[in-house]
Formats: sequence, structure tokens, C-alpha cells
Amino acid sequence: MVVARKVASFAQDGDVIGAGSGSTSFLTLQELGRRVKEDGLQCKVIPTSREMEMTAAVLGVEATTLMEDKPDWCYDGADEVDGQGNLIKGRGGAMYREKLVMASSDKAYILVDSSKFVEKLGAKFAVPVEVDQRALHYVQTQIEKMDISGSALRPAGGKDGPVITESGHLILDVNFNAITDTTERDLKAITGVIETGLFWGFKPEIIAD
Amino acid sequence: MVVARKVASFAQDGDVIGAGSGSTSFLTLQELGRRVKEDGLQCKVIPTSREMEMTAAVLGVEATTLMEDKPDWCYDGADEVDGQGNLIKGRGGAMYREKLVMASSDKAYILVDSSKFVEKLGAKFAVPVEVDQRALHYVQTQIEKMDISGSALRPAGGKDGPVITESGHLILDVNFNAITDTTERDLKAITGVIETGLFWGFKPEIIAD
Repeated sequence: MVVARKVASFAQDGDVIGAGSGSTSFLTLQELGRRVKEDGLQCKVIPTSREMEMTAAVLGVEATTLMEDKPDWCYDGADEVDGQGNLIKGRGGAMYREKLVMASSDKAYILVDSSKFVEKLGAKFAVPVEVDQRALHYVQTQIEKMDISGSALRPAGGKDGPVITESGHLILDVNFNAITDTTERDLKAITGVIETGLFWGFKPEIIAD
Repeated sequence: MVVARKVASFAQDGDVIGAGSGSTSFLTLQELGRRVKEDGLQCKVIPTSREMEMTAAVLGVEATTLMEDKPDWCYDGADEVDGQGNLIKGRGGAMYREKLVMASSDKAYILVDSSKFVEKLGAKFAVPVEVDQRALHYVQTQIEKMDISGSALRPAGGKDGPVITESGHLILDVNFNAITDTTERDLKAITGVIETGLFWGFKPEIIAD
């Protein structure tokens, strides 16, 4: 994939790189692994999911954490991108660690194909909201007061009942009638909301196929 | 303690009561236990800390959780109270579960002695901010941009290094130069901030000695 190769080519010796999750990020990590192996590139990655931790291990790319290192830059995918570079992420459920890494990075690259561009966020995707299990009922009550058309507790698929994130939480997928400048802050102000898949105001560099 | 007895006297058969943490809350739970034992009161409590879970068990008061029950009302202490009923809580480190319970309750009673009243919050106490360990560096960087005079990672005392909350997080005690209507929202908007000890706009009923 061209964008994965392009972003991997940005890596310099000594870089600490935030490694997003999802299929395009997977290809980028593979490409970084190739550069480590073939070109002797010296870099470390901060994975944003168990899958990427395991992938880095298999590829022989050194992994570190936000507790030990600060990412110089990061790359990631997105489910939706608007004209201002705001994003919806979290179809893969990794938005919490992804946002921790993106917030900690000086520079972010978002790799997408053109199908991800929307005029207004929320056109196709719901906003995933990561919720402390203990607060589910309260958070649902508060979110129902917002300008939404619906919300659903995300099912696990591989087990009965709701999906459990890698941080041990639930995901509510919320369909907003309109996403505004305050939507992310309004969601995060609710006690029990851990994080949201709305990446607002990060101004990443969008790299499209 | 008079206030503990007073609040415990509010309990009716069938009530689900959010049980705050701290010394005054401990006395209130003891008083509820006495009413269960002596008067046959039928109530359940939602404890906000391991200590209160254990206390309820010892006293023979039935305990439940926010996942199973909604509290009809709750009681709790506070470290500071201003004239509008805004609070600083969290000296005991239980502010996250305490806020989940208070937010879920229709009615909250705050039990304090008069030493807790301040003209402006932050006069004596720092605001405890519960932080995801992975995000500590980022959160510190963001908080340093706010109008603060200092912040400190709370030490554990009973172990080397920082205290770990019952939800597995760290506590940053932050001294603000001024706490305003937006301070809580500004803190919570930072990715990696789980919750804060600033209880803003809850309008509890204050019961003072």
C-alpha cells in the first residue's frame, strides 16, 4: 500500500513512533519492520493495541510505552475525516490508547483512502464512547439528553454480551444528529466516560491514497 | 456524631443508598448498620471504596453496585465546600467512585464540620486529579499550561512510589490559583484524566455540625 510505505519512509534513526491500530497501520508497521530488518533502521514504536504489540514483536521492531518514552510522531488510520482534519476513530476499539499516543505526539499522520472523507463527521459512523462499566446506566441517561438519534452498546462478537476494551471498559456507539465544537468536551465531562473516538482539533497531516 | 445519626435517620425501607468514604461516612454507615440490626431497616448501600465494602460486610448491611442498582440518594463527606455547594473531595482517594455514585443519585447529602467551609475552593486543598498511568507525562504537560501554582504526584505511604487508586490510577494533586466554572471541564477534556476531585454543580444538601 503506497501510503503505508510513504509514512514508513519518514522514520529516522532514533525516532520513537506511535503505532496506530487497524489495517493500514498494520501495513505501516510491517513496512517499518522491513526497514529495520533490511536497512538497519533504529527506531522504537509505541503500540496502541495488543495486536500491534504482538505484530511489533513478530517483526522484531523494538516496542516501548508512553510511560518510558515520548513519541516523536505517530501514524494511524481513521473511520471518518472531515475537511478540518477532525476524525472519528474506534471501529477497532483502540481509540483510547490511540488518543493517548496522538495527544502525546508532536506530529500525527493519518492514513486513509478517499472513502473516509466526509463533509460532516457522523455521516456514516457512530461516535464510539468508551465507558466505565460501573457508570453505563448513568452515561446512557446523560447521552440521551444530547442531540442524538440513537446509541447502542457494542456487542463483542467473540463472546456473549458487550465487547470489553483492552482497558476493561464498554463501548457505546452514539449516532449524533450534529457533531459540534463542544461535542467531545460535553461527552468527556460526563463522569464515567473514559474517552471518545471523536478526535477533535488535533490537526493531523492527512495522507490519502 | 450528630450529622451521621441525622442522615442515617433519613433511610427508609427499600432505599438504595450511595455510601461515601471517609471518617464521617464511616460513622454514617455504622449508624445505618445499627438501624438494620436494631430496627430491622431494609436497605442496600452502594459502597464507594473497598473500606466501605468491608465495613458494610462487617455490619451486615447488604451491599450492591451501580451496575445492579440505582441509588435513591447518597451521603458523603468533603474536604472543602464553597457557598454554592461545590466541593473538593479526594483526600481519601475515593473521588472517582464517589463521583460516579453522586452523579447517579437523585439527591446527595454532604456531611461536614464547619472547618470545611471556604470562601473559594482551593483555599486549603489541592484538587486531586485521577490520571491514567500511561498518560501521566502528557497530563502533567497540559495541566502546567493551566493557571496553577504547582502540582505533585501523590505518594503512597504504605509502599514506595506513587499511590495507586482502587481503579488502578495515579493521583496528581493540583494547586490552582483560581478555580472557575470551566476548571473541571478543562481538566476532564485532557485525554488520560479519568476524573477529578472537583465536584462542581452537584448542589448537594450540606449538613453541618
